Amino acid sequence: MEPQAAKEIYDQSIVIDGLNISNWDSPAVIASLQASGVAAINATLVSWENFLETMIAITAWHRRFAEHREVLSPVTCVDDILAAKKDGKVGVILGWQNATPLENDLARLQLFYDLGVRIIQLTFHERNLLGNGCWERVDDGLSNFGLDAVREMNRLGILIDLSHCGDRTTLEAIEHSERPVAFTHANARSFHEHKRNKTDEALKRLAERHGVVGATSFNLFLKAGVESTLDDFVDAIDDLVQRVGIDHVGFGTDFTQDQPEAFWRYLSSQQGTKFPATFFDPSTLQPGTAMSPKGLETPEKLPELAEALSFRNYKAEEISKILGGNWLRLLREVWM
Amino acid sequence: MEPQAAKEIYDQSIVIDGLNISNWDSPAVIASLQASGVAAINATLVSWENFLETMIAITAWHRRFAEHREVLSPVTCVDDILAAKKDGKVGVILGWQNATPLENDLARLQLFYDLGVRIIQLTFHERNLLGNGCWERVDDGLSNFGLDAVREMNRLGILIDLSHCGDRTTLEAIEHSERPVAFTHANARSFHEHKRNKTDEALKRLAERHGVVGATSFNLFLKAGVESTLDDFVDAIDDLVQRVGIDHVGFGTDFTQDQPEAFWRYLSSQQGTKFPATFFDPSTLQPGTAMSPKGLETPEKLPELAEALSFRNYKAEEISKILGGNWLRLLREVWM
Repeated sequence: MEPQAAKEIYDQSIVIDGLNISNWDSPAVIASLQASGVAAINATLVSWENFLETMIAITAWHRRFAEHREVLSPVTCVDDILAAKKDGKVGVILGWQNATPLENDLARLQLFYDLGVRIIQLTFHERNLLGNGCWERVDDGLSNFGLDAVREMNRLGILIDLSHCGDRTTLEAIEHSERPVAFTHANARSFHEHKRNKTDEALKRLAERHGVVGATSFNLFLKAGVESTLDDFVDAIDDLVQRVGIDHVGFGTDFTQDQPEAFWRYLSSQQGTKFPATFFDPSTLQPGTAMSPKGLETPEKLPELAEALSFRNYKAEEISKILGGNWLRLLREVWM
Repeated sequence: MEPQAAKEIYDQSIVIDGLNISNWDSPAVIASLQASGVAAINATLVSWENFLETMIAITAWHRRFAEHREVLSPVTCVDDILAAKKDGKVGVILGWQNATPLENDLARLQLFYDLGVRIIQLTFHERNLLGNGCWERVDDGLSNFGLDAVREMNRLGILIDLSHCGDRTTLEAIEHSERPVAFTHANARSFHEHKRNKTDEALKRLAERHGVVGATSFNLFLKAGVESTLDDFVDAIDDLVQRVGIDHVGFGTDFTQDQPEAFWRYLSSQQGTKFPATFFDPSTLQPGTAMSPKGLETPEKLPELAEALSFRNYKAEEISKILGGNWLRLLREVWM
């Protein structure tokens, strides 16, 4: 396939980034998104935030939607993604990487649904009231509250994300969810050993239940670590396609563009308050975009991904599925 | 032993109730405490409350201490208990049955310590950030956050209570605590099968580490259930003395005097918000003092406990230990 053909495929695809956690108040981030041709991103709103902090974060998005109305548009349904693509805008899906804003009340799921939240990762790095994260010392799965949360998210039509969840929490959520679920940003642990990558069993069950895994370019989850290139990321995509099939793989860059050191300390803390967390080696803290592979540092480089995929002899239709078609199918099924 | 002798033992003992969760705004509760001769109670401040709600609850206690200055006095050290006894007052230890007020920040332990909180149960009925309660569907023990909480409570000198904790959370907390811990209100599960009663292993480890278990008169944890009498409660005390020895048994009535139906619904809800909780059968909800055994309905009946113990041929010194001497020894060791 010629590079020109790959660019055409990219332009004609509904490109969806399964996870972006950049600094939304950086003009460079907005400019990069504008130049990217991406139809929608799962924009992280929450890592450790509580109820009030999340409400404040949502109002900040209202301000951004007003300020950047020519670039960004809010997404609460699949038609919003298609409209963003048509209008040359970037659709923003408000997503959480932790269920902490619910605090102790699942009735707040409806409240946040009404405010536009459409993707919720059940747990972040450690324990919460629902279940356990991948860095907890133990994981016996979902709590009573967590089981009820899955049911309520199913009822409302909120996509359940299990990327950071512990292994048993992951399997139980797949088992108990009546709708397909997602790993928005994770690779296979058999491909590269890391707690944040998912087990073969989890990947198999996810696909059996019609879920989608977003291969991630976050370089610590790739074989070459901080030395990774775009090609190393495509290796991870290839690996997932072989494991779960072409219909179950998307991508989630986990871009952390223009994030300051304070962001990394917050993310790497225990429960958002104690730095460093038990699991975390502060010497690995690398601020900025250093966590993205060379050749895919920012959203505007995403057309390169289409080209890199075309070199691996994927067909146009398959590239489109990986770029966003599979996410679109999943969101249609879950959001209704 | 003559009844008169038992009354004298009671009057000379430092009587400490390991758990009272009555309606503190009921005049009858205050009157009953005043008539009881109890030197101190572990007065529950928190079941599902969050940070702000707990701050409000503490200010309510400031008001009560002012209103009832002739009856109640705040306790933050062992000398405060001895002074309350000397002055004929009831010492009030501010205690929590859940660590929820900490929310996600263990630095708040110092804050609450400074405000007088001296006893904290790590978990209530279900999961929290520290560990699991006895009604959780699973118990994978303490979290990273929970381990750190134990260390910080050890450092500050806050008594760790494990009465409601799940079995593994209980064992891990005993193992990791550098100071002795308490089951302020629980019986032996081998005596009466109930999730809220403690396993033989937990009781053994508690005693090995110099902890104290408060036999509880809450009738569902006694063999005769709602038909229980004071004598059935003394059976539970006898049983614990046989299991762990006379130096490790106190009592915790779990009095719920004058609590309205709303209290029971709150306690029996999932995470304080959803009634009924997964584990709870609403038909068992019995408001009022119906959960205390006949003959020990309220604090003013506590002298009867001394008499009932004397009928079992305990020596005066042993009765004193059960009535509060063991709690006093434990508090001296933990509070420093």
